[in-house]
Amino acid sequence: MRDAYHEELDALTDKLVEMTRLVRSAISRATIALLDADLQLAESVISRDAEVNAIFEEIETTIFDLMARQQPVAMDLRLVITALRMGTDLERMGDLAVHVAKVARLRHPDSAIPAEIRSTILEMGQIAENLVTKAGSSVAARDVDSAMELEQDDDAMDRLHRRLFKTILAKDWSHGVEPAIDITLIGRYYERYADHAVRVATSVVYLVTGTRTA
Amino acid sequence: MRDAYHEELDALTDKLVEMTRLVRSAISRATIALLDADLQLAESVISRDAEVNAIFEEIETTIFDLMARQQPVAMDLRLVITALRMGTDLERMGDLAVHVAKVARLRHPDSAIPAEIRSTILEMGQIAENLVTKAGSSVAARDVDSAMELEQDDDAMDRLHRRLFKTILAKDWSHGVEPAIDITLIGRYYERYADHAVRVATSVVYLVTGTRTA
Repeated sequence: MRDAYHEELDALTDKLVEMTRLVRSAISRATIALLDADLQLAESVISRDAEVNAIFEEIETTIFDLMARQQPVAMDLRLVITALRMGTDLERMGDLAVHVAKVARLRHPDSAIPAEIRSTILEMGQIAENLVTKAGSSVAARDVDSAMELEQDDDAMDRLHRRLFKTILAKDWSHGVEPAIDITLIGRYYERYADHAVRVATSVVYLVTGTRTA
Repeated sequence: MRDAYHEELDALTDKLVEMTRLVRSAISRATIALLDADLQLAESVISRDAEVNAIFEEIETTIFDLMARQQPVAMDLRLVITALRMGTDLERMGDLAVHVAKVARLRHPDSAIPAEIRSTILEMGQIAENLVTKAGSSVAARDVDSAMELEQDDDAMDRLHRRLFKTILAKDWSHGVEPAIDITLIGRYYERYADHAVRVATSVVYLVTGTRTA
């Protein structure tokens, strides 16, 4: 049987996995809100970010408590430090999904996304979801191998990001400056979301191996 | 006399202050590189970011060592956790200065900044420098009051950021899409730089008072 201390450590992992689920749902809904100019969905992403923040606060409180009371060492110490870092990244991913949703809300009832880049944004959204799903599985299973895979998906995100710039800088871009600005920011939000998902996975590698790779 | 353990803790603070100096110099040089289309200066920002990263690695190594060997408690524990968070923010500020410098490099020998927004960018650079200078003093002196002041400077940054968008979205904007994209990204980099500086100051408040405000 696990003692109360180890149950608290297990609960930390569960909460991080729950955060990955919430920020995955957030980026998924934000992408749809953006593509379908769905105001209600955009609002739901914005208001439900409070849930992500609340879990992160619980994680922080648990960690500060644990460190003050239990003085964890070795693997347990790595877990609490890593959890703090992962939580910070996941909280930021929630913020980035909110930023995407806010662009959708700002342009409603229009869509911020012209027809010719819809498929690129859709793909960016899908890669973002894949990344955070894998990050979540890595955290849950402490799986280093699948954590390592994330770097490749991140390369795919970078390629899409470049394609986005190519489109808005092409001679036949007919939508002017405002949509170009929206798309520049949106592209940046997806790219940063992906970077943070990779960092979560990198933290799993550190947690399991004790080796910091980034 | 301080023992070796407390000397290590003091050295942590010194290294964080050194990081604030380096990332202040980086954003200062990046701003000039951008405004003067100074390639050499841009290159120096990009290459010297390695110094920031190296100090952060030293900080991380010290912290992981300290935690494993000494099991710090109470105030010392707060210091090491806070140092890790501050280091993460400062390292990111270095990256953001590099992003600004890379735009300068990309557009060289042209300037990425049209005449009518030079003064806004200059001001954003100055506020960024002020913020990180104050953050550095707060860290060095563990000064909560001056840490609190940073929020106001950050408001000034947000106002400048909005002014930037207003200019590139105005009817008389004559520079087309590419400079608008550059400026959108540059504006975002300064804004994020400022956010991280505020987070460093917020961490000082937590360090001294034990109260987390963000």
